[in-house]
Amino acid sequence: MVDTAQRPATLPTPEAPETSGDTGPITLNSDLAAAQVDVAALGRQLLGTWADVRIKAREVTARPDMQRIEGLSMHDHRLRVLEQLKVLAANGHVHRAFPKHLGGSDDHGGNIAGFEELVIADPSLQIKGGVQWGLFGAAVLHLGTKPHHDKYLPGIMDLSVPGAFAMTEIGHGSDVASIGTTATFDPDTDEFVINTPFRAAWKDYLGNAAKDGIAAVLFAQLITQGVQHGVHAFYLPIRDENNDFLPGIGGEDDGLKGGLNGIDNGRLHFTNVRIPRENLLNRYGDVAADGTYSSSISSPGRRFFTMLGTLVQGRVSLDGAATAASALALTIAITYGSQRRQFTAGDAEEEVILDYQRHQRRLFPRLATTYAQTFAHDEFLVKFDEVFSGKADTDDDRQDLETLAAALKPLSTWHALDTLQEAREACGGAGFLAENRLVGLRADLDVYATFEGDNNVLLQLVAKRLLTDYSRKFASADAGALARYVVQQAAGRAYHGSGLRTLAQTVTDFGSTARSVGALRDTNVQRELLTDRVETMIGEVAGHLRSANKMPKKQAAALFNSHQNELIEAAKAHAELLQWEAFTRALETTVDPGTKRVLTWLRDLFGLGLVEKNLAWYLIHGRLSSQRALSVTAYIDRLIARIRPHAQDLVDAFGYSQEHLRATISSGIERERQDEARDYYREQRASGQAPAPEKPAKPAKPAKK
Amino acid sequence: MVDTAQRPATLPTPEAPETSGDTGPITLNSDLAAAQVDVAALGRQLLGTWADVRIKAREVTARPDMQRIEGLSMHDHRLRVLEQLKVLAANGHVHRAFPKHLGGSDDHGGNIAGFEELVIADPSLQIKGGVQWGLFGAAVLHLGTKPHHDKYLPGIMDLSVPGAFAMTEIGHGSDVASIGTTATFDPDTDEFVINTPFRAAWKDYLGNAAKDGIAAVLFAQLITQGVQHGVHAFYLPIRDENNDFLPGIGGEDDGLKGGLNGIDNGRLHFTNVRIPRENLLNRYGDVAADGTYSSSISSPGRRFFTMLGTLVQGRVSLDGAATAASALALTIAITYGSQRRQFTAGDAEEEVILDYQRHQRRLFPRLATTYAQTFAHDEFLVKFDEVFSGKADTDDDRQDLETLAAALKPLSTWHALDTLQEAREACGGAGFLAENRLVGLRADLDVYATFEGDNNVLLQLVAKRLLTDYSRKFASADAGALARYVVQQAAGRAYHGSGLRTLAQTVTDFGSTARSVGALRDTNVQRELLTDRVETMIGEVAGHLRSANKMPKKQAAALFNSHQNELIEAAKAHAELLQWEAFTRALETTVDPGTKRVLTWLRDLFGLGLVEKNLAWYLIHGRLSSQRALSVTAYIDRLIARIRPHAQDLVDAFGYSQEHLRATISSGIERERQDEARDYYREQRASGQAPAPEKPAKPAKPAKK
Repeated sequence: MVDTAQRPATLPTPEAPETSGDTGPITLNSDLAAAQVDVAALGRQLLGTWADVRIKAREVTARPDMQRIEGLSMHDHRLRVLEQLKVLAANGHVHRAFPKHLGGSDDHGGNIAGFEELVIADPSLQIKGGVQWGLFGAAVLHLGTKPHHDKYLPGIMDLSVPGAFAMTEIGHGSDVASIGTTATFDPDTDEFVINTPFRAAWKDYLGNAAKDGIAAVLFAQLITQGVQHGVHAFYLPIRDENNDFLPGIGGEDDGLKGGLNGIDNGRLHFTNVRIPRENLLNRYGDVAADGTYSSSISSPGRRFFTMLGTLVQGRVSLDGAATAASALALTIAITYGSQRRQFTAGDAEEEVILDYQRHQRRLFPRLATTYAQTFAHDEFLVKFDEVFSGKADTDDDRQDLETLAAALKPLSTWHALDTLQEAREACGGAGFLAENRLVGLRADLDVYATFEGDNNVLLQLVAKRLLTDYSRKFASADAGALARYVVQQAAGRAYHGSGLRTLAQTVTDFGSTARSVGALRDTNVQRELLTDRVETMIGEVAGHLRSANKMPKKQAAALFNSHQNELIEAAKAHAELLQWEAFTRALETTVDPGTKRVLTWLRDLFGLGLVEKNLAWYLIHGRLSSQRALSVTAYIDRLIARIRPHAQDLVDAFGYSQEHLRATISSGIERERQDEARDYYREQRASGQAPAPEKPAKPAKPAKK
Repeated sequence: MVDTAQRPATLPTPEAPETSGDTGPITLNSDLAAAQVDVAALGRQLLGTWADVRIKAREVTARPDMQRIEGLSMHDHRLRVLEQLKVLAANGHVHRAFPKHLGGSDDHGGNIAGFEELVIADPSLQIKGGVQWGLFGAAVLHLGTKPHHDKYLPGIMDLSVPGAFAMTEIGHGSDVASIGTTATFDPDTDEFVINTPFRAAWKDYLGNAAKDGIAAVLFAQLITQGVQHGVHAFYLPIRDENNDFLPGIGGEDDGLKGGLNGIDNGRLHFTNVRIPRENLLNRYGDVAADGTYSSSISSPGRRFFTMLGTLVQGRVSLDGAATAASALALTIAITYGSQRRQFTAGDAEEEVILDYQRHQRRLFPRLATTYAQTFAHDEFLVKFDEVFSGKADTDDDRQDLETLAAALKPLSTWHALDTLQEAREACGGAGFLAENRLVGLRADLDVYATFEGDNNVLLQLVAKRLLTDYSRKFASADAGALARYVVQQAAGRAYHGSGLRTLAQTVTDFGSTARSVGALRDTNVQRELLTDRVETMIGEVAGHLRSANKMPKKQAAALFNSHQNELIEAAKAHAELLQWEAFTRALETTVDPGTKRVLTWLRDLFGLGLVEKNLAWYLIHGRLSSQRALSVTAYIDRLIARIRPHAQDLVDAFGYSQEHLRATISSGIERERQDEARDYYREQRASGQAPAPEKPAKPAKPAKK
């Protein structure tokens, strides 16, 4: 590396008086510096509702035989992960969601909590396990009926029947309703005939399809008596005892991927493959021997959404796994940043890189987001458990759960990629070495952004829901409803409708920056700023789209498309609000005052970070004056400095040991090397043996004015 | 993949009348739709000053034997790249920068142009070649003198002597001045004694060090007569004829990395390794037989910067290669997006995904930036050539070149990562397959952000230069100087000092959005908005730092640190302005009117994209009214729609053939599959054999208001 920079350095100044002319005087609290994080208690809080399951899972992920080995060939990696799956099948780690009478424990939330921890061992393990038990097995469980359960689940659970989840087609990713594969009922033989009508209808990207799978749950258009009843799921053997494809079935290996190469993704196609009628997973739709179709759900659209809705757990698990990976990355980068020294302010000793403002700016907001996601994920998991355990599974509950999934999964999976990359860059060249794990994790998690629903498509689902809610409330002519609809997205929070207007109207009154900063610290002000933005964005788009239902279809679609970007941004804002709300609720349950204080700074950093990111919106819409907008950034700078002394505690609380981190640079080796170098120079100076400088010392200085 | 979305679709509406209530009426130019891009002419313009060299290089990169094979083991990949390097050595592709009398052509600009094209074949090839000829060879060329050239360059050029560039230490990445390795002169034997005093001083991340290198240029603190004269370069054999380390030398393999695994990066350390005095590369500093040190540059600091400045070409080459990779990624994603269909507005046929507004918003601004970078890079390369050919190599020229390198390399390398990722996601699951190249390129280019100078550190160099210029101008009490200093960073542009103030003052006059949009289209308005921001940001920070030189050193450093983030943002803004200027100059040389028109939209998209990204700044500082700020986004939406019909032409003009793209999805296969599927359904409908829908067709509609 070539570099000529003398980076001006500094010491940490967490509680230094004003450093920016923009921020005005603040009240110095003498106990700020004294705030301490109770790492153990915070760690317990972060583990969440299924803490015991997670602790057990972390014992599994700490086992070397369950972990990824960097640099394995695709072939060897696949073999290794398959062996690891057998361990999971044997120890029951992956059976929690299955029925008690088959050896499971009907524990849906705990099941996901345990699954998502596997990402720390190897994302391929998490995802291949997810394919087997979370998709293939769950489809039999949720779309099949008791005969299917009794017949198929035992083999799925114990992995004697590895299977694929054959939904996605090469021509149809996120648009499942449009898949081309057909299952046509033949009453003469009492069979379904499966066909792939054209190349674009090949099933693709299916885990377990290239090599290990001997069966599949296949999604196809069900046709009987000349009528197409939409997408249904079928149980289908695909390979024989020699692991050769059964007659009429063909396929290809997807080959090397950007990551997750421990999973044998592949393609499948079908030519007149016949399966017995009872292989239709018939919970939501059935065909009688004479070919008569019946369903408990009369609307084909609602039936489709209900069937697919049972598979939401994939998204839940990705949200949790992405958040765990972000936490791991930040633990590595912040630990390293606390030990690594580079550049000097002219003193003999170099500065710790985490003391540089830019380094803090790069890592701490991402830490705040990771905390928000951790808390939001636990609430999400509770909601999922309530729906799947039957505790609260009305249609509304299920729709709320799906909207929550569609909102949170995109944000957390994108955040993981962003955080892993920033952490990698923050560790410099060392971050690029496979031994320090960041590059491998990033490569594996890349596809989380587009599988189980493309992130952009999911956010459009959220936007549609917001628009629908808006239009319902609006149509009902209840003036207050408009102000309340977003509230319902985040159940349980107190919404001060009047505060919102007050904030907007009195913004010009905030002449004093000090008062302005004070207001930004206020939980209700943050809530109002964030809530108001979602409401207003949706209201604006709804206004633009109002004329759509009077238009010809094509024109209406064009109008909608011209607001697509805004809609997705509104959905993001909504999801961020949900995360902020969860963080805020978590604060309420934090007992230790020191921990609560530091966590509040972190929550403020998250909330004000969202405001800063969208500052233009707040200015344009008159929600913030220029004066106050400036104070947002200034206050974020101050929060970052306050958080600095607690950064290590905040990542330690995630609870990952060296067995989980497995990164050379976070093992303490960097501190040893730095100490050795400093000792060397100290001794040299003390001994008088140090070579003289060519010219008298002329330390680097900051640029003079 | 599980998805339940019905994404509302649309048709492209490039010249549709107003779709947003924010934008007001525009003048419809009937010839907008008729604008055609002259792809061949634009292609020639994009090839730039060294078009002939690039065309030749693309013949090399189109050769299968020179290309990366996905999925090779690290071992095999290294072997393959070494063999490819031998081809380059044999055909002279990499010798252009070397002296004519040794078989080179003293062509510095052409050399880099040829090098950076290699990224298309395999980034490992580009970088390993860069290590051998651009770092190891160039250090001998630029830091050594004629005896070194005659003795070492022939073996370096023909690859009989593969070598490492041993600068970076594990404890010191970007802070080269602080490296620990020592070279102490021993007059008794007329030798330098090389030592690694502690673990942190091991050389690390060195290409060619793990396996192939038999020599190195080593950077070490030169000590003679008890005085340390700072970092100097030495020529040092490291391995014997059996490829074993020479006595006193040890090392390690860096092992697997996040990418670039065709390069054998490794570590080296030294214990009392003796080399003859003449192995000091003594162009800028020498030691006589009696141990007397001499240098043509009396200041140790200036000497250091001069020596390292000769190695700027690495950054030049990364800027070009990163831009080429971005162009390749966009060619793949936009070609695929133009063929891939997904979701329907209720018609029988699905929409092309590039017709979705969000998809355009994801890809077209990145296309605009890639164009800006392509033009900026060519100017950068011309500047580099002028300095290194001696046409214009004053100290000021060299400093300008280094500032330019420090400004452009960070932006283009980050842009490449961002673009490769967005392109990958825009291609969905297919983008994650290695066969479609995006994931592999992204993995390889990851480290471009931190090697050859960490991006954040480089931007601080730029900021320092801006501050220095500012303070010089300011100190000279010339009131106009302040307004001019940024101008000088981007030589040749016309700056309307008065326009800036006018803009700010009359902003409230722009009641009509139409006029507002008209102004945003104006080249001078864009220039002023961008220039003003850089000036103002630097001026503000300078104001905050004014008191620093009256402070104790530590306090001053702390003050500086508290503005580190702002400084880096200002440097980014400066670099973006340079790119915008280059794009604007390129427009002036575009002859074909249709091409010029479309390129102007693209330049406007780039310029206004920068304004939109920093909209809060413009609002806070009173440069844009809320009304006009809204029109920025609305106008960008309009530009994107206008560019849509030309998107394929704009990527085709980059000039990459299928041999360069090598991505299955951009080969036309997707169109074939889509056509086959559509034909199938058409025939089925025509034959009357199509199954009936369960209920009468009820196409998806946009949400009603």
